[in-house]
Amino acid sequence: MLLLDGKKLSEEIKAEIKTQVEKRLLTGKSAPHLAAILVGNDGGSLTYVGHKVKACEQVGFRSTLLHFQENITQDALLKEIERLNADNTVHGFIVQLPLPAHIDATRVLLHIHPSKDVDGFHPVNVGRITLGMPGFVSATPLGITRLLERYAIQTAGKHCVIIGRSNIVGRPLSILLSSQSATGNATVTLCHSRTQNLASITRQADILIAALGKPEFLTANMVKEGAVVIDVGTTRVPDPSAKTGWRLKGDVKFDEVAPKCSAITPVPGGVGPMTVVSLLLNTLQAAQQADP
Amino acid sequence: MLLLDGKKLSEEIKAEIKTQVEKRLLTGKSAPHLAAILVGNDGGSLTYVGHKVKACEQVGFRSTLLHFQENITQDALLKEIERLNADNTVHGFIVQLPLPAHIDATRVLLHIHPSKDVDGFHPVNVGRITLGMPGFVSATPLGITRLLERYAIQTAGKHCVIIGRSNIVGRPLSILLSSQSATGNATVTLCHSRTQNLASITRQADILIAALGKPEFLTANMVKEGAVVIDVGTTRVPDPSAKTGWRLKGDVKFDEVAPKCSAITPVPGGVGPMTVVSLLLNTLQAAQQADP
Repeated sequence: MLLLDGKKLSEEIKAEIKTQVEKRLLTGKSAPHLAAILVGNDGGSLTYVGHKVKACEQVGFRSTLLHFQENITQDALLKEIERLNADNTVHGFIVQLPLPAHIDATRVLLHIHPSKDVDGFHPVNVGRITLGMPGFVSATPLGITRLLERYAIQTAGKHCVIIGRSNIVGRPLSILLSSQSATGNATVTLCHSRTQNLASITRQADILIAALGKPEFLTANMVKEGAVVIDVGTTRVPDPSAKTGWRLKGDVKFDEVAPKCSAITPVPGGVGPMTVVSLLLNTLQAAQQADP
Repeated sequence: MLLLDGKKLSEEIKAEIKTQVEKRLLTGKSAPHLAAILVGNDGGSLTYVGHKVKACEQVGFRSTLLHFQENITQDALLKEIERLNADNTVHGFIVQLPLPAHIDATRVLLHIHPSKDVDGFHPVNVGRITLGMPGFVSATPLGITRLLERYAIQTAGKHCVIIGRSNIVGRPLSILLSSQSATGNATVTLCHSRTQNLASITRQADILIAALGKPEFLTANMVKEGAVVIDVGTTRVPDPSAKTGWRLKGDVKFDEVAPKCSAITPVPGGVGPMTVVSLLLNTLQAAQQADP
């Protein structure tokens, strides 16, 4: 069983990005600049944004964190987005979700200019990727395809089964893996809460992706011997023995599933770090498009 | 075995659309107006555009056919599209494909304003539909979901297998059928030219959609007893006994597959007429959005 070490791989890719940034600087170009909008003080959001800012520093990107109070109005937030859209020194930006209930997240999302939408959530980018055109791929699906690629896990002709049809993971991943591309050409089955006889489907998977957000949902009896298993889950479960009082749990019951797999991602240290590094890749792409 | 009569159903839906148009006219609103751009004299394209114009007449729509010579320049074509984008009397328009080789079809497509893109091919519409937002669904997938709906064929929890990942049929249909909607919630497997052991997958399908464009590809041994089979193929094969010298063949070997099915679409008279009527539904939607 091969452990797909997203943490180590993400460090390698960060080193490659850093080299690219240095090349840009040597030729008189600006460092890629990522801005992040954070509203309120949700613990998870603070952590995630913190990781992203830190990752920017590691690779020589410029980063700007715009942190607003929970009670910012929707109009004020939309104005901030317009400002970032117009700011030529910012190559890409993200709005950390979730947003407070009084703000229409879809409205906010649609306000981001697609050329700066490095999260790849805007319909223009989703549509372009769906049609096989260039655009920003959202970070988690991009990270997973990069992980498979770097570990030389062939997708062409393989049966990939994805559990979970979210707009940020399962859905775009189902599109990427079945597209005509080097990290695609798989036969893809997309499963979700309404799927019947789930285990009989997951047992057919050569590559099995759990992205439903239910800790330890995927058990050994659902996995074919020799399958590749990708665990996208990151649920915080209480753990009094941890300093923080919680720890991350994946969607896969790792201890019993891992022995059956040819390869598997751990949680933490699998998909998570690849997601952060994908955001950096998108921001680098945005900078190169704006200032080639 | 139930024959899914797309021709009859399309006539029923056309009658419903006609009633909607009459209601619009009674309240002083304009008739929906569809324009079609046709370049050159490809036989198939002439026939398809002819069907669309005729269908407009049947339901009381206004229609305009802009027929250009094969040698029209790309710039001139883009100017025509700009004119249609700006023309408030045109609610929606389509560019009949294929276009001559000297014209970049993607460039042309991207030039159509998404609010008038009643073919649903623009990335903005594809992205919106992928994300579950309102937008124009391309005509063939929309026609198929309408056909299933009207014949009360449940998709929720069913295993739908689609053969063919084209941007105009297989791909968007895979998204629709797996979405959270009344005609979705299916477990969807998308198969294509790189799929291995295809028959072992298609035999699992409760609903099987053949959209690969290979006449009589799907044979009885690939179909589960009691399945619903939807045939999207429309290949013209030579037939000396026909007046035209050809006849339409579907992707399904109908004679041997039909007896195994609980329901099946014929070719012609199945998906084809539903596609044309879906274009009318999209044009009506465009008119109602422009002039509610």
